[in-house]
Amino acid sequence: MDLKEKIRIIMDFPKKGISFKDITTLLKDGEAFRTAIKSLADLVRDKDFDLVAGPEARGFIIGAPLAYELGKGFVPARKRGKLPGETIKAEYKLEYGTDVLEMHKDAIEKGQKVLVVDDLLATGGTIFSTIELVEKLGGIVTAVAFLIELTELKGRECLSNYEVVSLIKY
Amino acid sequence: MDLKEKIRIIMDFPKKGISFKDITTLLKDGEAFRTAIKSLADLVRDKDFDLVAGPEARGFIIGAPLAYELGKGFVPARKRGKLPGETIKAEYKLEYGTDVLEMHKDAIEKGQKVLVVDDLLATGGTIFSTIELVEKLGGIVTAVAFLIELTELKGRECLSNYEVVSLIKY
Repeated sequence: MDLKEKIRIIMDFPKKGISFKDITTLLKDGEAFRTAIKSLADLVRDKDFDLVAGPEARGFIIGAPLAYELGKGFVPARKRGKLPGETIKAEYKLEYGTDVLEMHKDAIEKGQKVLVVDDLLATGGTIFSTIELVEKLGGIVTAVAFLIELTELKGRECLSNYEVVSLIKY
Repeated sequence: MDLKEKIRIIMDFPKKGISFKDITTLLKDGEAFRTAIKSLADLVRDKDFDLVAGPEARGFIIGAPLAYELGKGFVPARKRGKLPGETIKAEYKLEYGTDVLEMHKDAIEKGQKVLVVDDLLATGGTIFSTIELVEKLGGIVTAVAFLIELTELKGRECLSNYEVVSLIKY
């Protein structure tokens, strides 16, 4: 199955000049969604990790079923004020200003190995904050996995300290 | 496995008097997460539906792996401005004011059967907006499924036009 055919390209979203990769057309196709998660799982199945972590919100749509398929726990990195327990925070840049992601202080035990997952690797953004949260808690990032990688934006170079895995490349 | 033992109760979150059911302790336990999704899937497996729909963001953590396990597509109901294509909107009430959820206009075809999923049924809230979006698009809500139901808040009564399924009851 050619998963790229299931992804819709929308021009000029969220702003002019950006060709947005819309995965909702893939997600709503049961067979394509299953193939995507299964194939991504196959890319990381032999790696050594205890948990899957992903940032709100699209990271949940890929990370949670991936964790489920692999029989691992899932750790959400959430937006400000959403987590009820004690948290740690990591800032990330917006076009104007900054925002934060949070993780529960007890989400990861020191030394636990973590696969960090998001839907798309462009220039980085929230994935760095998610990695920062994992490492602040003493977790070890085994690899970083994406459904989609926009290779020409060279986000992978910014993640050169990590093993980076992606299923669909543009 | 007693899944209730995996859920942490946090008092007075998000405000005084509320005993918050924190599922992050369940999610991070790979076996508990797997059992929870599998058991919820078993409750709806024999029902007739084509798609699973769930609201941002905790609805993604339960709905996406549930759709995956059942081999169905997943349709996210997203917060304002997140979806790149043409959308329809449904309002929901906040403590002060209102907010909206959006769904792509082409997310559901007329007559498609949809299982609507969220993590928790309290008094309703975003689940009604998600149902409204599905029905505006001509979808038929086969059932509404929750990981957790707070029975004394009687949210089920407000959903009396629908079949309601829940795995863990308080």
